[in-house]
Amino acid sequence: MRKRVWLIVVICILTVGGLLGANGVSSYADSPKHKETPHNKGKAKNVIVLIGDGMGPAYTTAYRYMKDDPSTPEMEKTIFDTYFTGMAKTYSNDEEENITDSAAAATSMAAGIKTYNGAISVDTDKQPVKTVLEAAKEKGKATGLVSTSQITHATPAAFGAHDVSRQNYDAIADDYFDEMISGKHKIDVMLGGGTNYFDRDDRNLIQEFKEDGYSYVTSAGEMEENKNGKLLGLFAPVGLPKAIDRDESTPSLEDMTKAALEKLSKDKDGFFLMIEGSQIDWAGHDNDSVSVMSEMEDFAKAFEAAIAFAKENKHTQVVLTADHATGGFSIGRDGGYNFNPDAIKAAKRTPEFMAQQIINGASVEDVLDEYVEFDFTENELQSIREAADSDDFDTLYHGISEVFNKRAGVGFTTGGHTGVDVPVYAYGPKSERFSGLIENTDIANEVFRFLK
Amino acid sequence: MRKRVWLIVVICILTVGGLLGANGVSSYADSPKHKETPHNKGKAKNVIVLIGDGMGPAYTTAYRYMKDDPSTPEMEKTIFDTYFTGMAKTYSNDEEENITDSAAAATSMAAGIKTYNGAISVDTDKQPVKTVLEAAKEKGKATGLVSTSQITHATPAAFGAHDVSRQNYDAIADDYFDEMISGKHKIDVMLGGGTNYFDRDDRNLIQEFKEDGYSYVTSAGEMEENKNGKLLGLFAPVGLPKAIDRDESTPSLEDMTKAALEKLSKDKDGFFLMIEGSQIDWAGHDNDSVSVMSEMEDFAKAFEAAIAFAKENKHTQVVLTADHATGGFSIGRDGGYNFNPDAIKAAKRTPEFMAQQIINGASVEDVLDEYVEFDFTENELQSIREAADSDDFDTLYHGISEVFNKRAGVGFTTGGHTGVDVPVYAYGPKSERFSGLIENTDIANEVFRFLK
Repeated sequence: MRKRVWLIVVICILTVGGLLGANGVSSYADSPKHKETPHNKGKAKNVIVLIGDGMGPAYTTAYRYMKDDPSTPEMEKTIFDTYFTGMAKTYSNDEEENITDSAAAATSMAAGIKTYNGAISVDTDKQPVKTVLEAAKEKGKATGLVSTSQITHATPAAFGAHDVSRQNYDAIADDYFDEMISGKHKIDVMLGGGTNYFDRDDRNLIQEFKEDGYSYVTSAGEMEENKNGKLLGLFAPVGLPKAIDRDESTPSLEDMTKAALEKLSKDKDGFFLMIEGSQIDWAGHDNDSVSVMSEMEDFAKAFEAAIAFAKENKHTQVVLTADHATGGFSIGRDGGYNFNPDAIKAAKRTPEFMAQQIINGASVEDVLDEYVEFDFTENELQSIREAADSDDFDTLYHGISEVFNKRAGVGFTTGGHTGVDVPVYAYGPKSERFSGLIENTDIANEVFRFLK
Repeated sequence: MRKRVWLIVVICILTVGGLLGANGVSSYADSPKHKETPHNKGKAKNVIVLIGDGMGPAYTTAYRYMKDDPSTPEMEKTIFDTYFTGMAKTYSNDEEENITDSAAAATSMAAGIKTYNGAISVDTDKQPVKTVLEAAKEKGKATGLVSTSQITHATPAAFGAHDVSRQNYDAIADDYFDEMISGKHKIDVMLGGGTNYFDRDDRNLIQEFKEDGYSYVTSAGEMEENKNGKLLGLFAPVGLPKAIDRDESTPSLEDMTKAALEKLSKDKDGFFLMIEGSQIDWAGHDNDSVSVMSEMEDFAKAFEAAIAFAKENKHTQVVLTADHATGGFSIGRDGGYNFNPDAIKAAKRTPEFMAQQIINGASVEDVLDEYVEFDFTENELQSIREAADSDDFDTLYHGISEVFNKRAGVGFTTGGHTGVDVPVYAYGPKSERFSGLIENTDIANEVFRFLK
């Protein structure tokens, strides 16, 4: 009988131990707010980092208004809301500026250090610092970068290159090819824009990648059909068109995310993938709420794809945040207490696209009639006609955007970035590490830690 | 022996149960980000709710910039940062407007329902709904309201009154006296501004409260000396002066908080206290960054006092949030990447105070020289002189404010509210209930739950 007693004690101890061991990770998942994160256990073999460039807290809140069903009193949760874990501080370590740029912030998230604005994974002494993508490759994992900007733009660059300046797009593309880890190229999948920086007079990196076993694709269809685990996909000379301006040959961020996941997940050692919703920021710089929401939707769908993958494939940690906020965007403006999503939803193309059509010779009336689902007032038409008369693209683009911004009831304070903390979202076994108020450097430092 | 086996099994079950029971509350406190919240266990006998009116995420981030030690590369934590738990959605349930006002948001936090803008703890059918202050009083707890606005303003009103309109200040003051719970007045301590609404032609509520055993004080000194557990303290006809404009006879929000805590904590049944940093919002409406930061500092010190109390007195739950954001405030403006706290710190009084001095006859130069620690440029002086020439207080106030805003590098988009989610902070045994992304109604509903 004594043996039976001890057996029961041992079983009890194991049970207690199991509960204690799961404590830190399971408690978060068990809390009433986070019932939908059931996989918060075990190792993170795969890591997916998603960055909404410029996606400050007013953008994620506005996206909730955009997705709201107005027939119900509650405002429904978005894909972001379901996985909210905390906020991140974004400031950089720059002698001249105390509001970050995308390069310094991406370096923080990729390499775990605060550095100067413009730095691509180099420190304040301009020395290269190892990135989480490189650490993953050192562990034998597959790696990928996906963006809607040129793939050499600041955010992806900080994960896959080292440069004293974000402006050195050619040198960054060179790094993607030249910087080897254990004799191999460090990035297996690159999807985004930027043929200009790969197919150059001085060097043809597309050819060089192909010679080293990579496939090269330039359309959604080619990307879909491709079976090679090493892939360079460049779908535009610089950045991709905005989501609502794309034709079928240009992949969405969701398409690129799915293609990258399909390839990278074949590596039995796991993978690291960075996905950027790059042009949320660009739209913010342009103070263009239609384009902000076009890009937010594109990014949200990529997040959904990443979450779906992680739900299917355990041991996958997804973390999503922004590098900074852009534009000083506000829900509400000029004393009004209404945000009207319908004004933004009425645009079938971006104001940028419409402005280009008009500059190319189409009439103001025809363009607005074709691409906007509401009727413009005579005052609005007049303001756009005057902007068109300037024959200046930026003036016209801004003029059209402002009609949408005013109707939507949203304001902007700047064509640059702002310093407000940004939201953080996570799903997977290590999600609790991204909860509460964190430094943007914690993103990298936590990934480094659980990659070990 | 069978009995002994069962005894061991029961002990094991109790052990497991105990660990599971502590799981939800201890895990948050144990996480590396929240080492400073050691008391996350047990009951919450006392509840302190602090509301920074209008305190959106850009204000709390800007406050961190304000408190930063520029000689170190990291940006030091503020009192807010230490206790960050999540974000709250602020939208109301209004037929005309989808950005909340303070009344609807305060009703959500006080009574746990979404209602129309302007409602003081009445639902969309204009029916009264029980508040957490009332529930606390029903449990025999002491109760208090503290604000820097008139104590009848929307936020405190939603905790202690019921009215179809926030504008009915007199009726709200009447409610504070007339609405009894178990034959007693429901609010034991009221500290703030608003003599105008208590000492009226039709009714003298000050006299009525005194006849029912309350003390009445009108200065910081009187408040400090007072020993009565029932106290009405009104320190201004309407709202208090802004923190940096106060003389010694006017208490700070910290002073009022400490006085309220000293009185309420004598009730062995515990207490409920609501403290509002009311004029963060007013400063935001005025697009006046100097006053925003004056009021943020005042509010932060009240939070420190509440935290200090909770650390000394276990079983105290502190929760702090905002009702909404105000002003569309941004850290950064007009393309600049710098926020300069020194420009704001240079003001020894608010622009409002300075404008009043000039309107009262003082010269622009004398006033700016006396109350501002930087030298104005000739352009700045010229713009303020022109504003002064208008002889219009608002024009002059705005003109002076804008000089500070531009030097500080901060922007505003509206004189109203904005819809962005607001930060939530908590300390105490029930803090995990306020983590993640919550509805503002969760504040009340969680308090209702643990008051049970």
